[in-house]
Amino acid sequence: MCSDMVLNLPVWVRSFLEGSAKTFPTVEERMRFVIELARLNVEHKTGGPFGAAVFEQEKGRLIAVGVNQVESLNCSIAHAEMLAIALAQKAVGTYDLGERGGACELVTSTEPCVMCLGAVCWSGVKSVVCGARDEDARRIGFDEGPKPPDWAGALESRGISVVRDVLRKQAAAVLAEYRDKGGLIYNPDR
Amino acid sequence: MCSDMVLNLPVWVRSFLEGSAKTFPTVEERMRFVIELARLNVEHKTGGPFGAAVFEQEKGRLIAVGVNQVESLNCSIAHAEMLAIALAQKAVGTYDLGERGGACELVTSTEPCVMCLGAVCWSGVKSVVCGARDEDARRIGFDEGPKPPDWAGALESRGISVVRDVLRKQAAAVLAEYRDKGGLIYNPDR
Repeated sequence: MCSDMVLNLPVWVRSFLEGSAKTFPTVEERMRFVIELARLNVEHKTGGPFGAAVFEQEKGRLIAVGVNQVESLNCSIAHAEMLAIALAQKAVGTYDLGERGGACELVTSTEPCVMCLGAVCWSGVKSVVCGARDEDARRIGFDEGPKPPDWAGALESRGISVVRDVLRKQAAAVLAEYRDKGGLIYNPDR
Repeated sequence: MCSDMVLNLPVWVRSFLEGSAKTFPTVEERMRFVIELARLNVEHKTGGPFGAAVFEQEKGRLIAVGVNQVESLNCSIAHAEMLAIALAQKAVGTYDLGERGGACELVTSTEPCVMCLGAVCWSGVKSVVCGARDEDARRIGFDEGPKPPDWAGALESRGISVVRDVLRKQAAAVLAEYRDKGGLIYNPDR
């Protein structure tokens, strides 16, 4: 019986990170970076059109990145946000990305699905910054799941600030590109 | 920067599995098994009081198990259900635990939090069987997150059957035991 599984990033990520900035002062710079992760994930055919990263909220130091790896890892929990959160927690050595873990922010190229919404709640991050809207993802056939209607309010009420529509058009363009290239819109077979 | 992290089970799980059945024909037998996983996780002090497993729905062959590993792995996504799903998908070689992956059932000692609810949607499992209710978890201080009020209906509408209250009393007793032993009720620091 399997007793372990590895969540890892595609090999192209390493060289991409070597050539990229280490600190991203503004939310627009952070968003541009995660949109590029999403775009490269499509270009390299290593997963769905989603990218995410965890930054120190205040100064913008990059802590960890994630891209969708569902197909590559044969693992339905391997969404971009999940990898970014898990890798950030490993990097800082605590399961709490709040004060103890450096007061972090999650930046994601598309608003979180219901699973990632929950993961945000437990991650300790102080804020979430989103690019494309969940309806942009739904429009190309992805399912965002049974999120509460006011999911952003639910995060705010837990002390997690939510910033939406940052470079939304650019983020949504990566979703459209994925669809146009015939990328797999995976959903469980029922 | 971290580019991988390992989701793994505590070492005691291996010997426990060696001494346990491999097939569990009824939902009560499946539930008794996951409650025992939860209890052992408390006894061994390897995580929160939660256990889960994935079975072939029809015949009850055990595919994979999970226990809460948030503290042990310093990883807030390491809930019992998440590990069981990820390890089952590795075992069957596909991210879809539906027909392609053997038509599986997730059995969990406590109803899923919002993150695990989402993970159930994407996992492909055909059914979910729950022991303790989410209010039993809330009663000892755990947060289940912003779940939609009719979360079970949301799963049913996606073709995932939900069975609740299987050995609820026995499952809730493990939660109470954990609280009484002074187990950590981790929540992000806000």
